[in-house]
Amino acid sequence: MPSHDLLIIGGGPAGHVAARDAAARGLSVALAERHLLGGTCLNVGCIPTKVLLGATNAVAELKAQQKRRLCSGEISFDLKALMQRKDRLVAGSRQAVEKELAGLGVTLFTGAASFTGPTSALIRTADGDTPVDFRHAILATGTRPADFPGLTADGCRVLDSDALLSLQTVPQSILILGGGAIGLELGEWLSRLGTAIIMVEAADRLAPFEDPEVSAQLKTALSRDGWKIHLGKKAVSLQTVGDIARCELEDGTVLEADLALTALGRRPNTDGIGLEAARIATDGRGFVQIDDHLRASATVYAVGDVNGRALWAHAAMHQARHAVRSILAASSAPYPFPSMPGCIYGTHEVMRVGASARELAAAGRPVSISRSLLAANPLAQAHGASAGLVKCVWDGEQLAGVTAMGWNVSHLVTLAQALITQQTTRNELDSLIFAHPTLDESLEAALMHAPRERFGEA
Amino acid sequence: MPSHDLLIIGGGPAGHVAARDAAARGLSVALAERHLLGGTCLNVGCIPTKVLLGATNAVAELKAQQKRRLCSGEISFDLKALMQRKDRLVAGSRQAVEKELAGLGVTLFTGAASFTGPTSALIRTADGDTPVDFRHAILATGTRPADFPGLTADGCRVLDSDALLSLQTVPQSILILGGGAIGLELGEWLSRLGTAIIMVEAADRLAPFEDPEVSAQLKTALSRDGWKIHLGKKAVSLQTVGDIARCELEDGTVLEADLALTALGRRPNTDGIGLEAARIATDGRGFVQIDDHLRASATVYAVGDVNGRALWAHAAMHQARHAVRSILAASSAPYPFPSMPGCIYGTHEVMRVGASARELAAAGRPVSISRSLLAANPLAQAHGASAGLVKCVWDGEQLAGVTAMGWNVSHLVTLAQALITQQTTRNELDSLIFAHPTLDESLEAALMHAPRERFGEA
Repeated sequence: MPSHDLLIIGGGPAGHVAARDAAARGLSVALAERHLLGGTCLNVGCIPTKVLLGATNAVAELKAQQKRRLCSGEISFDLKALMQRKDRLVAGSRQAVEKELAGLGVTLFTGAASFTGPTSALIRTADGDTPVDFRHAILATGTRPADFPGLTADGCRVLDSDALLSLQTVPQSILILGGGAIGLELGEWLSRLGTAIIMVEAADRLAPFEDPEVSAQLKTALSRDGWKIHLGKKAVSLQTVGDIARCELEDGTVLEADLALTALGRRPNTDGIGLEAARIATDGRGFVQIDDHLRASATVYAVGDVNGRALWAHAAMHQARHAVRSILAASSAPYPFPSMPGCIYGTHEVMRVGASARELAAAGRPVSISRSLLAANPLAQAHGASAGLVKCVWDGEQLAGVTAMGWNVSHLVTLAQALITQQTTRNELDSLIFAHPTLDESLEAALMHAPRERFGEA
Repeated sequence: MPSHDLLIIGGGPAGHVAARDAAARGLSVALAERHLLGGTCLNVGCIPTKVLLGATNAVAELKAQQKRRLCSGEISFDLKALMQRKDRLVAGSRQAVEKELAGLGVTLFTGAASFTGPTSALIRTADGDTPVDFRHAILATGTRPADFPGLTADGCRVLDSDALLSLQTVPQSILILGGGAIGLELGEWLSRLGTAIIMVEAADRLAPFEDPEVSAQLKTALSRDGWKIHLGKKAVSLQTVGDIARCELEDGTVLEADLALTALGRRPNTDGIGLEAARIATDGRGFVQIDDHLRASATVYAVGDVNGRALWAHAAMHQARHAVRSILAASSAPYPFPSMPGCIYGTHEVMRVGASARELAAAGRPVSISRSLLAANPLAQAHGASAGLVKCVWDGEQLAGVTAMGWNVSHLVTLAQALITQQTTRNELDSLIFAHPTLDESLEAALMHAPRERFGEA
């Protein structure tokens, strides 16, 4: 039976980085991916959505200037060509991953793996079953679109995000169930192609994981762009009826559109991977339980989406690196579970890093807030941006969090994070020269020139 | 005779910031501006060029995707509306400056000031001459477009950048003399409006103050966009002939275009301001000489463009803040003359911060270089960017400089600067989480994942 120092189950960002790091440091590594290397992020997640948004950005920039009557024009997309471009870029990156791992001597299996014991697994490939022994394993099987009874993608007029990313015709209208990152990004893309957007979110605000002010500004901006947004409304049914998608809300309202997207979150890929055999437990939501070392058992680390801690590709990669370091080291430090930066992309972007005001206040910290409006930034003005803000959260005198909504604010995320994690002092901030004019100055304005309000006060 | 703690001559970024800071701290301040508050930056520099580039960015994004045959479309601008929008934005900011300074009790004069002695000046306003006494003065009169014999803007077919920013008709072609930031930005703008660009630069590369690799990549990208670029060519004459602009180069080549722009650098505004009376000297290029405290004399500080040290608005503001602190403090530290971040905007942006490899090598430092290509970054790919790079300069193990060329790289400038000025260690870099996918990852790739080459070796 082939034996490896490390078996990795799942070839998404976490599996890829773990395999690369471990193989580069001399471990014998096997990686089993049942579908496509690159996982959700590369194949049906962050990357293809960014390709679609990047390619259609001209529409957003055009509209912003048309509103100001500075220009006229029209842009029409060849959806087939756009999808081919996306597929080519994705395939190219996938091949690069495969080549890199093969070059490092990683044994790659295309097949589903399941644990048969604490140090053994079976990989089912097209060529038959291969039993594999391992000293350590990293479980990184990720998540897939969640569905709920009555609200399930049917592949006809009701699609999940995986299916929507293979769209062949632009719908006249789409009903998006879920106002989180996935629904927002795909909605922004389709809106640029001319699709009318109807969005339903059960929570009382869009992007419910973000700062409430960000949610509010997002709603204003998207409503101004023509989106019909239903907040605090639960859908009770969603199905294809004839050639349309039909959704009934709790209050009896019926919504119809050419197409519907269910974007109701993600659920972990933990079925059929022999968790019991490896003595791995799941939590109430089905995510793999881990200890503070990212271990799901004595021999298995669980990293990335599958442990449910931070559903971001960069979080997955960060955890993967830690797991490999732990496997290589005699002793290991606990994983710090750092606060993860996050972005939502589109015409109206969202970024956040560090703590939120609510979190800090709940922990009894003395919280204050300072803000700047994007409309006061010359670069944002130049791009016709009228909505948006940058908001800094202070824990006493220490910068603890930054969030923002508006034109290009994803570009502020690493700068904000560096200032927070390096615990930049007021003096250091003073000596940081912000080039003029930059969008970064909107962060400077919130950091340095805005009054601070005690959180919780009006 | 009215007497003030501080007289500021020039109401550009330096004068504005100095007046605000000094007045906010209780000094009695007079500010004389002979033309428009906001100076070059706000009225005929950074801001209007960014408005014009921002408004036309849709064209660049559209072209990048059209090249990949993903869409078709056309955008046509209403130049008059665009100019009005620019003028409105600029006027709004100017009014905000005026209101802020008036609110702080600054005495504002619209008029040219000239020193009549070390602590006295005369301000010539429309209402007559006003003599003013001061304890301290800050000279911040800035610069204006340079001209050279035979190459002077004539206001007819040969314009300087001030005049080009009031253009009323889009020319079919323009001949731009000077391949620095001003020529590049205005060229990018006109190119988006459909103007054919002919650029002549006396140095052997574009953007001669930037890294040579940046210059080379810029030339490749702009040539691909259809620019005709003549490097290492000196113009001997440039004039309006009939209804065209005609330029003769040293080698006898004759270039013709609808319009010409002289963008041959800037020269200081030092005429008629009584430098002798205030015992202020100028250097060989006409810039005001200063000591290491930014002082041009015992009573006068000279900050911003007029001292010729760093012709950036943010440099001017930084110096102004230092001058005010020095005036307020009993003792004063010398000005550190920090390395200034700088950007050139447009479709192909440039950013730089910190030291260049050449500078460090000339100082005998052990220099190495690491690079990433923008074409490997998913966000740059998504926006159709194929050119560009991020280049890190290392002094031993310490990050000493970063420069970049390509799509949106101006957004990397403050992050790079923070990492340099905070002397971020390798460990701190390791713990900095780069969100995926972001353009910031192109900096991460150059910082963390690229091999380092000794500078000077192939």
